[in-house]
Amino acid sequence: MREVAVLGIGATPVEEQWEKSLRELAGEASLAAMQDAGLDTIQSIFIGNMMSGSANHQQHLGVYLADWLDMRFAEGLRVEAACSSGAAAFRSALMAVASGEVDTALSVAVEKMTDSPSTEITAELATAADADWETDQGLSFVALNALVMQRYMYEHHWQHDDFANFSINAHANGVHNPNARFRKPITIETYRKSPIVADPITVMDASPMGDGAAAAILVPVEALRRYGVTQTIQVIGSGAATDSIAVHGRKDPTWLTAAERSAKQAYQQAGCTPKDMDLFEAHDAFTIMATLSLEASGFAERGQGVRLALDEEIRPNGRIPIATRGGLKARGHPVGATGMYQIIEVVQQLRGQAGENQIADARIGMAQNIGGSGSNIITHILKSA
Amino acid sequence: MREVAVLGIGATPVEEQWEKSLRELAGEASLAAMQDAGLDTIQSIFIGNMMSGSANHQQHLGVYLADWLDMRFAEGLRVEAACSSGAAAFRSALMAVASGEVDTALSVAVEKMTDSPSTEITAELATAADADWETDQGLSFVALNALVMQRYMYEHHWQHDDFANFSINAHANGVHNPNARFRKPITIETYRKSPIVADPITVMDASPMGDGAAAAILVPVEALRRYGVTQTIQVIGSGAATDSIAVHGRKDPTWLTAAERSAKQAYQQAGCTPKDMDLFEAHDAFTIMATLSLEASGFAERGQGVRLALDEEIRPNGRIPIATRGGLKARGHPVGATGMYQIIEVVQQLRGQAGENQIADARIGMAQNIGGSGSNIITHILKSA
Repeated sequence: MREVAVLGIGATPVEEQWEKSLRELAGEASLAAMQDAGLDTIQSIFIGNMMSGSANHQQHLGVYLADWLDMRFAEGLRVEAACSSGAAAFRSALMAVASGEVDTALSVAVEKMTDSPSTEITAELATAADADWETDQGLSFVALNALVMQRYMYEHHWQHDDFANFSINAHANGVHNPNARFRKPITIETYRKSPIVADPITVMDASPMGDGAAAAILVPVEALRRYGVTQTIQVIGSGAATDSIAVHGRKDPTWLTAAERSAKQAYQQAGCTPKDMDLFEAHDAFTIMATLSLEASGFAERGQGVRLALDEEIRPNGRIPIATRGGLKARGHPVGATGMYQIIEVVQQLRGQAGENQIADARIGMAQNIGGSGSNIITHILKSA
Repeated sequence: MREVAVLGIGATPVEEQWEKSLRELAGEASLAAMQDAGLDTIQSIFIGNMMSGSANHQQHLGVYLADWLDMRFAEGLRVEAACSSGAAAFRSALMAVASGEVDTALSVAVEKMTDSPSTEITAELATAADADWETDQGLSFVALNALVMQRYMYEHHWQHDDFANFSINAHANGVHNPNARFRKPITIETYRKSPIVADPITVMDASPMGDGAAAAILVPVEALRRYGVTQTIQVIGSGAATDSIAVHGRKDPTWLTAAERSAKQAYQQAGCTPKDMDLFEAHDAFTIMATLSLEASGFAERGQGVRLALDEEIRPNGRIPIATRGGLKARGHPVGATGMYQIIEVVQQLRGQAGENQIADARIGMAQNIGGSGSNIITHILKSA
């Protein structure tokens, strides 16, 4: 198995990109990553996306993007794993390069959601849940997360206010990220006054949708010398695991077993423990998901993820900084693209290119992308050398 | 790069499967493949599918299938490349096993099309073409192929009747395949009397949609001894290439450059030439596509693919047998699943399990899956040893 490195990264801002088509978004991020890598051609394209078939009446995004990039005859395929499509595309590209079959892979993820009526997007997001046993009962995605959060608060005796710092930290960090959808800090008052979406989840617990694309170029570590690279950003751990697609199928809906499994795989490959992580791009689609992700990945005891937020250990100078560039909450959650934003944000930190968000001496970083209601979870660990 | 073999295969019949859900179809094919392989668990699932998001209101098929199979915590992701989704899933699984990251991979592909109104399916199929520059002009998929066929007949001086044997051969072979959607032979009269869909394409030039799933288990060749296998079915060549997504973007719309490129890659890896192939599962979605696929893959000169049909060289005892189990025309074309049907049909031939369709002494076989109007083409070569 060949060792694999990230040679280049690129992304568009996450916003309402009504002036740009799906291909322009994916193309811009890809060209930025290629320019960053110093490459003008790529052998294989792995494009992560959840809903272009319905939201943009376009499937077949592999060739669609290869065509736009004028990379005639490159390989192109789309990888879909709902909200974890971004990390799934990255992992597919990783395995392709590791196998020796592919020498230059473009992993890009894109979502363009804001052209469509929000009712359509809500229905489309629900296709990540179980159509027969959840969606048909009228459960939307936020409702599923609200049920989990309600139960978690009851079992572990937390109040809604206790989750505030997840949101406050994300928005504070988003201020300094030019790609972030929201760049205004919030206070505890903002959090308290935020309207309820599905009790107990308020607007300030939930991440906003958006349009955007993020991309990375993967090459074998052994080829880096040829590219004149001095700093190696290596992918040292990768793990993927699923759980029952419906929340009711799990023994304990307040524990993310798929996160635990995928993180464990990634730690083992990397020869690391949670203590080695300088930062963690967690999947804070909802404050409850950030909590559960921290616990299952070994950063907190069961029921105590909230404590990390209360103690401000998730802040840039804390024990385990999360959402360092705004997270899903402030950078935004263009669903199928989110996992690739997480990856490039880790790379930015390891390169020392995170500007005012820079985590001091960041050497090892982790990204965890969650699909569905915790049913598909993919973890990557990257290291600077 | 580890060498990879197919350890087990399974499939459902292609038909109108109104009594079975999407997960039951994918699950049945997968369980059949696992039983054939003698495995009761799998590490990673790569599921090929084009249109479940719209046709079945269900995405996120990796976890959806892992859950149904009760393979809690297995990796699961979906691969989409329109009509070439099946081969794209197989190639992804192949690279995962080749990389050393995955030891047992399930490549399965499923499509369930006949529950939806045919107008919806026609619109959904069109998402494989260019939404902005083809579909919005009112071009359906059959219309795109009709334009190509019209031009091909004009340039190379063929008549419609000259294509008849593609259809006659496929239907003759389908009679003996229990998974085939149509099991009745047709005659030249049937072909001549067939109603036009989009001039010059008639019903007998076009493959039928359907519901179905096909699956294969991939493992490293080095592990075969552990599984007690005596016959090795190895994947010796794999190639993938794209072309412009819109037909008008190509210098010559009557030449499948992506087929030429992907076949060349596969031949080079395999150390083979077209002459070494004992059979070829070509992508006969339309008779014109079978013709163009034969030419670009090196079985006929430019403009002379039709000659192979006229001379009956594509029959089971001919120079290059195609559609040996009915092809897309008679076995059926459950769009995203088709590429996996082609793969398992090659495996059946190499194992000597093709019944009355058996090609004598079949040792090396090729499958080529075409996505869109020739814009995404994936070729695999398998060998029995």
